Amino acid sequence: MSMNEVKRPWERLLDLLETRNPDLVRAYLNSLKSEEIVRSISHMDLHEQRLLLTLLSPEDAADIIEDIPEAQAASIIETMKVKEAAAILNEMESDDQADLLSGLRPENAEAIIKRMKPEEAADVKNLIQYKPETAGGLMITEFLTYHENEFVGEVVNDLRENVEKYKKYNVQYLYVTADEGFVGVLQMKDLLMSKINTRLSEIVIRDTFTVQDSTTLDGLISFFDKYDFYGVPVLNDKHQLVGVVLRKHILEAKNERASIDLLSTQGIVGGEELRTMPLLIRSKRRLSWLSINILLNIMAASVIAFYQETLSAVIALAVFLPIISDMSGCSGNQAVAVSMRELSLGVVKPYEAMRVWLQEISVGLLNGLALGILIGLAAYLWKENIYLGLVVGGALSINTVLAVSLGGTLPLIIKKFGFDPALASGPVLTTITDMAGFFMTLSLASLMLAKL
Amino acid sequence: MSMNEVKRPWERLLDLLETRNPDLVRAYLNSLKSEEIVRSISHMDLHEQRLLLTLLSPEDAADIIEDIPEAQAASIIETMKVKEAAAILNEMESDDQADLLSGLRPENAEAIIKRMKPEEAADVKNLIQYKPETAGGLMITEFLTYHENEFVGEVVNDLRENVEKYKKYNVQYLYVTADEGFVGVLQMKDLLMSKINTRLSEIVIRDTFTVQDSTTLDGLISFFDKYDFYGVPVLNDKHQLVGVVLRKHILEAKNERASIDLLSTQGIVGGEELRTMPLLIRSKRRLSWLSINILLNIMAASVIAFYQETLSAVIALAVFLPIISDMSGCSGNQAVAVSMRELSLGVVKPYEAMRVWLQEISVGLLNGLALGILIGLAAYLWKENIYLGLVVGGALSINTVLAVSLGGTLPLIIKKFGFDPALASGPVLTTITDMAGFFMTLSLASLMLAKL
Repeated sequence: MSMNEVKRPWERLLDLLETRNPDLVRAYLNSLKSEEIVRSISHMDLHEQRLLLTLLSPEDAADIIEDIPEAQAASIIETMKVKEAAAILNEMESDDQADLLSGLRPENAEAIIKRMKPEEAADVKNLIQYKPETAGGLMITEFLTYHENEFVGEVVNDLRENVEKYKKYNVQYLYVTADEGFVGVLQMKDLLMSKINTRLSEIVIRDTFTVQDSTTLDGLISFFDKYDFYGVPVLNDKHQLVGVVLRKHILEAKNERASIDLLSTQGIVGGEELRTMPLLIRSKRRLSWLSINILLNIMAASVIAFYQETLSAVIALAVFLPIISDMSGCSGNQAVAVSMRELSLGVVKPYEAMRVWLQEISVGLLNGLALGILIGLAAYLWKENIYLGLVVGGALSINTVLAVSLGGTLPLIIKKFGFDPALASGPVLTTITDMAGFFMTLSLASLMLAKL
Repeated sequence: MSMNEVKRPWERLLDLLETRNPDLVRAYLNSLKSEEIVRSISHMDLHEQRLLLTLLSPEDAADIIEDIPEAQAASIIETMKVKEAAAILNEMESDDQADLLSGLRPENAEAIIKRMKPEEAADVKNLIQYKPETAGGLMITEFLTYHENEFVGEVVNDLRENVEKYKKYNVQYLYVTADEGFVGVLQMKDLLMSKINTRLSEIVIRDTFTVQDSTTLDGLISFFDKYDFYGVPVLNDKHQLVGVVLRKHILEAKNERASIDLLSTQGIVGGEELRTMPLLIRSKRRLSWLSINILLNIMAASVIAFYQETLSAVIALAVFLPIISDMSGCSGNQAVAVSMRELSLGVVKPYEAMRVWLQEISVGLLNGLALGILIGLAAYLWKENIYLGLVVGGALSINTVLAVSLGGTLPLIIKKFGFDPALASGPVLTTITDMAGFFMTLSLASLMLAKL
């Protein structure tokens, strides 16, 4: 068997692209898993990506665009002709349309909207005004409504006649409106079990949950935590039905946020990074945080500069400073992680910093003692000086208590002031624990200098 | 207004508990958001938690148990009488039953199963055999099946007569079986549009997707990524329908995993930590990783011990060692975060370490240069010695390239060998970058010692 026989999916795809035969390409794509398609696309250059999407039907291209990361989708769409892009946008779900268009340069987005089908364009212009993490930004506008004066028979006929057209719609529920606005929800099984001359007003479920278009993602997450619905109707401030938020979209948004959180704890800000992005963007996104961090680091290390005499007298201390800095950072970040999780589970609220602090102190004392003994022992065994062990071990013990106290409470305090706890906890925390750790070790050492 | 008027939810709840009136407690709980209930429970002690759950009806208690974190639910259930626990378990969804029971001590789980309703006990005994992160462990067993020889009229009658009983069931779809096993899916709308004397075999959708009970969570995630279904039928190796995996449960499991990942990157292993857990468990879970980390730290810092002479000659170097250690760790962890995200999005595979490496080198060179110039400048300005700037800046530049190379590729390599990339990347990475950073700085300094 030669190596040529085992081609990667993107190599096969590029071969098929050269045939310019949409059916072959499409059949091959259907045989791939969703993640294989995403990965294959990220192996192509912009030219090949555009070729693929324009070769496929707009429906198939829309499926792919909805699957790949948003930043990537936007860069492909921007290489296309406005007409091609509009044809693909027409086939997407309304919330994906809005997300994608808000990722484009405004002039491009506007041009594309002008070429879209009028009804799709109207929907998307409406949606694009909402903030992304609100019910308005997360809802879909593909839903079916009927007036409360209509009859069951009319609805059933309409559904039968428009099966094709309604395929894109969310037909788990139907909605009922009146002249004054939203009335309620109609269940499929009630349609099934009612006579055809029943008025919808008789079988509509009126006492139904709704959310406002301004409801935040947090509000929606806790709504779907409490209620086991497939979706919830969204009303504007005139009590009109403007869309439906689906549970799956909320769970996806929550997932996406957790994943972005992991990036931002490492200081990759301004959106996601994929390695297929241009080098300068990737470098800049990482560097903006690194350069703040290096300044904070220099600030923390300047504490050491004040103790150069102590250090030259006991050069062994230089070995322990990085250890104390790193270990305090680790202990503190564990406490940060627990607080972040408790915040996201909702078992702790920002104003409970005092309670969290008390709970952290006990863990800090216990773990600080254990770590202090370990490192103190190492120092003693190396230099055979019990006082060096006491200085180093004592400093780490005290600093561990400080680190977990800060680590546990900082996320709550930062959240209380309206900032993102994931982003801010790390650098602030390690700068303070570094400064305190260096100060503790070197000032203790200065006090005991005669014995070291 | 006195402070007494603004009581926290758990204070109100404890007051109501003292009345021992289940209706009052229930009415108050219904007025709370799901996360307020979770938080209130975590403010109670075990005795109060048990009192609350035994005062409520088993149905209401089951709703609460399903909402709170698993570890907490398990500890409450273990304080209850077997009979009380079994009554609550009877009312839970089958996958939650299995999850909860596998969190209990085996002898307790067995005793509770013996007191459960026979049909629930049979279901759960079956489910508990599956691994938690497989279709078998994630599926529910509340679904409705009909034989392909039955008629539409019979099904509609059965549904109408058993509305109450089927409330707990997933009735978005119905399933059709034959003597040989699973046949296919029946849609509500097809029931609605068919005559009552139609046989199910005529309207069943046969060409339907199914998964095996052994399908992994990863497999299910990519299934629901590709297909927009509410749920998917699960078959055993005899082609029998054994359960249904719902999209929402897969998204929840994915969320839960992302959240646990964040804890395990900070070395909180062996399950989640909540601050309501006993002190010793919390301390131990954090300490097990910290104590490995401190050993690795001592190992890395021992590099410094070999250069004590260089250090005593140029004591300023001691100020820069912690900075170089910390900054290299940061750059490396950024690359880890990007790789973790690309792995979870599926845009990169473990065998592509070489490609990732090449993509990281360019970012590393650029950012290393920028950071090196910054710190070199700081060193030069402080000591007015250009050679000190060159040593420190050069060491950080080179070490940044090393750090991002390792940080980008380690998660892929660790995953290739079957370990959890989140857990292993951090400590391994920082130990190597610390050693290399210390070595680079101090050996460069030794070479230039005459000029420093």
